[in-house]
Amino acid sequence: MVKDKHLKHQPFKIKALYTQSDISSLKFVNSLPGQPPFVRGPHADMYNTKSWTIRQYTGFASAEESNKSFHKTLEEGGQGLSVAFDLPTHLGYDSDHPAASADVGMAGVAIDSVEDMKTLFQGIDLSAVSVSMTMNGAVLPIMAAFIVAAEESGVKKAQLRGTIQNDILKEFLVRNTYIFEPKVSLHSSIELVSYLTDKLPLFNSMSISGYHFQEAGADPCLELALTIANARLYLDRLSQKGISLDKFCRRLSFFFGIGMQFYQEIAKLRAARYLWNEEMDKRGVTDETSKKLRMHCQTSGWSLSAQEPMNNIIRTTIEAMGAVFGGTQSLHTNAYDEALSIPSDESARVARNTQLILQQESGIGDVVDPWAGSFMMESLTDQMIQKVHSYLNQIDQLGGIIEAIEQGWITDTIHQLAIQKQTKIDNATDVIIGVNKFQVQNNSEVTPQARKINNDKVKQRQLEQLSILKASRNQVVVNDKLKQLTCAASQFKDNLMDCTVEAIRARATIGEVTQALNVAWPRAKMDAAFSSQQSNMEHKNQLDWERVKRKVHQYTKHNNRPKILIAKLGLDGHDRGAKVVAAGLQDLGFDVTLSNLFQTAEDIAHSVTKIQPDILGISLLSGAHLKLVKELNQQLANTNIIKIVGGIIPKEHHLLLRKQGIDQIFTPGSRIDDIASRLIDLLHQTKQTIPFHNII
Amino acid sequence: MVKDKHLKHQPFKIKALYTQSDISSLKFVNSLPGQPPFVRGPHADMYNTKSWTIRQYTGFASAEESNKSFHKTLEEGGQGLSVAFDLPTHLGYDSDHPAASADVGMAGVAIDSVEDMKTLFQGIDLSAVSVSMTMNGAVLPIMAAFIVAAEESGVKKAQLRGTIQNDILKEFLVRNTYIFEPKVSLHSSIELVSYLTDKLPLFNSMSISGYHFQEAGADPCLELALTIANARLYLDRLSQKGISLDKFCRRLSFFFGIGMQFYQEIAKLRAARYLWNEEMDKRGVTDETSKKLRMHCQTSGWSLSAQEPMNNIIRTTIEAMGAVFGGTQSLHTNAYDEALSIPSDESARVARNTQLILQQESGIGDVVDPWAGSFMMESLTDQMIQKVHSYLNQIDQLGGIIEAIEQGWITDTIHQLAIQKQTKIDNATDVIIGVNKFQVQNNSEVTPQARKINNDKVKQRQLEQLSILKASRNQVVVNDKLKQLTCAASQFKDNLMDCTVEAIRARATIGEVTQALNVAWPRAKMDAAFSSQQSNMEHKNQLDWERVKRKVHQYTKHNNRPKILIAKLGLDGHDRGAKVVAAGLQDLGFDVTLSNLFQTAEDIAHSVTKIQPDILGISLLSGAHLKLVKELNQQLANTNIIKIVGGIIPKEHHLLLRKQGIDQIFTPGSRIDDIASRLIDLLHQTKQTIPFHNII
Repeated sequence: MVKDKHLKHQPFKIKALYTQSDISSLKFVNSLPGQPPFVRGPHADMYNTKSWTIRQYTGFASAEESNKSFHKTLEEGGQGLSVAFDLPTHLGYDSDHPAASADVGMAGVAIDSVEDMKTLFQGIDLSAVSVSMTMNGAVLPIMAAFIVAAEESGVKKAQLRGTIQNDILKEFLVRNTYIFEPKVSLHSSIELVSYLTDKLPLFNSMSISGYHFQEAGADPCLELALTIANARLYLDRLSQKGISLDKFCRRLSFFFGIGMQFYQEIAKLRAARYLWNEEMDKRGVTDETSKKLRMHCQTSGWSLSAQEPMNNIIRTTIEAMGAVFGGTQSLHTNAYDEALSIPSDESARVARNTQLILQQESGIGDVVDPWAGSFMMESLTDQMIQKVHSYLNQIDQLGGIIEAIEQGWITDTIHQLAIQKQTKIDNATDVIIGVNKFQVQNNSEVTPQARKINNDKVKQRQLEQLSILKASRNQVVVNDKLKQLTCAASQFKDNLMDCTVEAIRARATIGEVTQALNVAWPRAKMDAAFSSQQSNMEHKNQLDWERVKRKVHQYTKHNNRPKILIAKLGLDGHDRGAKVVAAGLQDLGFDVTLSNLFQTAEDIAHSVTKIQPDILGISLLSGAHLKLVKELNQQLANTNIIKIVGGIIPKEHHLLLRKQGIDQIFTPGSRIDDIASRLIDLLHQTKQTIPFHNII
Repeated sequence: MVKDKHLKHQPFKIKALYTQSDISSLKFVNSLPGQPPFVRGPHADMYNTKSWTIRQYTGFASAEESNKSFHKTLEEGGQGLSVAFDLPTHLGYDSDHPAASADVGMAGVAIDSVEDMKTLFQGIDLSAVSVSMTMNGAVLPIMAAFIVAAEESGVKKAQLRGTIQNDILKEFLVRNTYIFEPKVSLHSSIELVSYLTDKLPLFNSMSISGYHFQEAGADPCLELALTIANARLYLDRLSQKGISLDKFCRRLSFFFGIGMQFYQEIAKLRAARYLWNEEMDKRGVTDETSKKLRMHCQTSGWSLSAQEPMNNIIRTTIEAMGAVFGGTQSLHTNAYDEALSIPSDESARVARNTQLILQQESGIGDVVDPWAGSFMMESLTDQMIQKVHSYLNQIDQLGGIIEAIEQGWITDTIHQLAIQKQTKIDNATDVIIGVNKFQVQNNSEVTPQARKINNDKVKQRQLEQLSILKASRNQVVVNDKLKQLTCAASQFKDNLMDCTVEAIRARATIGEVTQALNVAWPRAKMDAAFSSQQSNMEHKNQLDWERVKRKVHQYTKHNNRPKILIAKLGLDGHDRGAKVVAAGLQDLGFDVTLSNLFQTAEDIAHSVTKIQPDILGISLLSGAHLKLVKELNQQLANTNIIKIVGGIIPKEHHLLLRKQGIDQIFTPGSRIDDIASRLIDLLHQTKQTIPFHNII
């Protein structure tokens, strides 16, 4: 479907030379930290009073194992916790749900009930340690489980400190871990804010996230604009509901990504505070704390390369410095092996040390807003503000965020930017050392052993716990509480979160709560985001690209146009890579179909039967590849299709996947033309009836 | 000896908040890059026209092996060469000299003659690639060998681009690789400048170095002051000799270290350009190029830790950013394993990638002097300028640099700063992650295999080449040329460098040329720099320190005061560590003797017989430890002394040294009180007649 709406991209411009004249008209240059418009930071003393919080996003396998890791984090210098949940939990499936299967405990910790939540925080004083939870889909039962777990350990609601992401809009725009339709999702998100604002005064009830926009392809400027645009919609809805913005915004947090555009990233964080203060003024908010945008940052996962992983330590250090210079309140630094696997203990430590060294050795936090006055930085901050204004106007004129979600024009804009970026990387106009320049053949670099997660073991543990839970609870009470919840949902009552807490306290599971909501609100069903339009990869006149294009053309002379089905298998919703590869292959002459998200092996087998592709490309970033490929093979037992895998695959799993019949594996950093060329080679080999995976 | 002269330390102060008012009176804030006073950089476009040069200091084993490494460097993104010579070459010993022995090829490449020099640059076009040579002691024969090697490969003197360090003053103050007495050394240095200024117009005839001051303990401000002070003396001497400063300064380079004091380091580089321009103006220099201070920088070797080596990637990235923000013209980034061994190929690549990523991925070089206008940075730059002025006045009032070399008061000041720093580290007032905070027990971190250098093989190759050289040359001509050189030296003639070139061209060796100069100028003999005065380690009231002090005291009640001889074995002149440990142990109650530099095993055996210490502590940073300890053991065969080693020792050599009878090994990052405590334990064990090294 060709979209008639799109955002006009506002390229960010950096000059070679800045002087006094670039900033002489900017009023905010002479502002002070801790005072409006807060460009110089939300607090007067910044890190001299309180350093930023080292908050590493962690979670894998079972609650017990993640709990051990939390303790280790806090012992080794972590200063707050941030929970990564597994994909079934995100999507509201208990571990015994058929769709959960291979993903249980893989990309985060499996939490099925309040009992798991209690285990997760065993021995951690929730009145002292702040906890951030990245949860948007199953946000009601997870938040409820956290509250009940805390209460049962003796910590009251009013004492709880931390943040729940609860930002559903960006899930529909980019991240894809939503459960219900946009409008009811938004409703439940607002209900949660209402509840938390009232009952958990120290807990941030929402963390509006730009991070995932940047990961999906947006540049820092568009990332900020979309974050503010989402924030505006939330503010509108909260006002409509009669919630005091003065009160809500005291406990609102923001979340930004920090990529390799060093200067832009710093300017972005400074501009964000300016824009927020402006927005608050417009809405008549007078509370000083509410006017101060406070944020968590995370270094860019997308900027990491699978090739020469140690280069990622360098990249993450640069990015972390950007976040600190921008004045972040807390920070996650990525581990250097994250383009290959879930971080090992060792790589997690190096990531934490990156922050500790910046915080305690370099002295960069000793000065408040050190870039203040810099001709360049003040000018870039102003440019960022102006460009965001322009984006916000465009979004308003095009009909707003809900309209964008329904029609997809923001997603499309981001997808086009992702394609542009990939094109620049393929062309080596944008250099990535070790990927498109100074590549190392036969790299002998020692990489840490990938963390091994035994999905079967975790799943068995979860099933046992579920059956113990279900055997020991009062089923009548549970049924009653779930019924009340369904009623609150279907009638859009105000007691939605109260009902959720009661159901969870009665030992209803996360999946059961979701199911109860489901009765009122159907699961959202979204179309594949990749469209079959021209992908516009801008490789014109690039020798390699044209050479591969001719190669595909040559093949097509004697065969059908090579047909590929690119499919997202399992519960992982990250689709930047799949979409960019789909677009590129199409431009090179392939006949490409992109599946919807969240495909089961069975779904894919049906599509294969229907579409009859020559090649099946599976995108897998969740760590569940070994098991999912096994399931897929069972479904495809009688087909002779070429199978390739793309995504985050540890080196030691390559041979295992090859043995399972996967013909090629492409990790992050693969060039699109190289992928295409290898696929054509595979097609030729198959025509010669040599099963490729036997001749590795 | 207690010195009656000392420099008053000027602590650098950084405030928490800077505003416009901090810089309103500073005129240079509105200056432009490429224009006086050059605070904003020597060039108008800076890295937009020409990026900084990635120049990694490399050299080890034989000329063949180093040549291979140079080719690898250039292929993998290195942009210029920088030769590390081995210690015998630095000190003017051929590889067959008895004093050379264990050090041949260990800490750099062994170069005995023009033939080795030709091999070193085999296949590298010296008219295209610029070559930096860190050479100060044997500077005449090495520069001559480079010139003759180039000429014999068809490249004329006038085409040669690069830098010879030729900064002898700092050798006497800190680095200790001098050969002759200060005054004749200075004479030959000036002679070389005269020659190069005249004949190699594209070659930097001197690189005045602050780096080694910082490595020895100076802070960035004192480092800069001493660099300028040395520069002033050179300028005085050159003027006296009638050399045009307008001409000389066009080809003068500076060399600074970049440590973890991020903001100070940037301010230092900006201030350096201001101060240099000021100095040039004072001396009536009108040539624009001469007024522009240009520099090479190297990240701090001292800042690296042996514990958790990957942390060093983070530190080096931060430091490299400081150098680039300061506007350096070329940069060396240290490898992360350098606190353990000579860099492996792999760690060298990560170090190079640090620069490539900054240069080609981060965009930080896109803006000229990005900190310009920053209230903080402009203010710090001004503070740096003022404090350097104050130091320079002090140095003048105390009698100048030559006086300082002879009386040692600059060296003493630096030693006191090194002690202060070590005290802060031992107290954990200055944090080093993994060293004095968040230490990891049983670190499983994978470290690259240390580079293995087969000293015997290198030495054999050198001896063979020497005998081929000597057999094939015309000995009469050689003798004649060497005689002429001695004559030029003893009569302080102007043709010193011409004579050197002629001798080298006739195939006299580096050692023979040095010997010929030696006839006229005796080798310098310097006393041990550590004095037996109170060391003033400021650990008062620190629990650990006081506890160990009591432990030593307790031991002394029943035994003699524990006596230790700390000795520098071999040709390595780095003595910061040895001196700081000596001072600390003395303060804790040990009876400490520090040997002179450059001790042979025989020298040490004599000292042991004379002093009768309980413990012998050997300081070894050159990589030659295995062989040197073996030699030492032969000399000490009949003694029962406790032997410990401190310095840069790869993990895989620890057991080997233990088997050779070394009782303890201390790598960089060891706490002084911990060393002392372990020594007392060893003394107790020895009293119980259990040979410790049998019970490891």
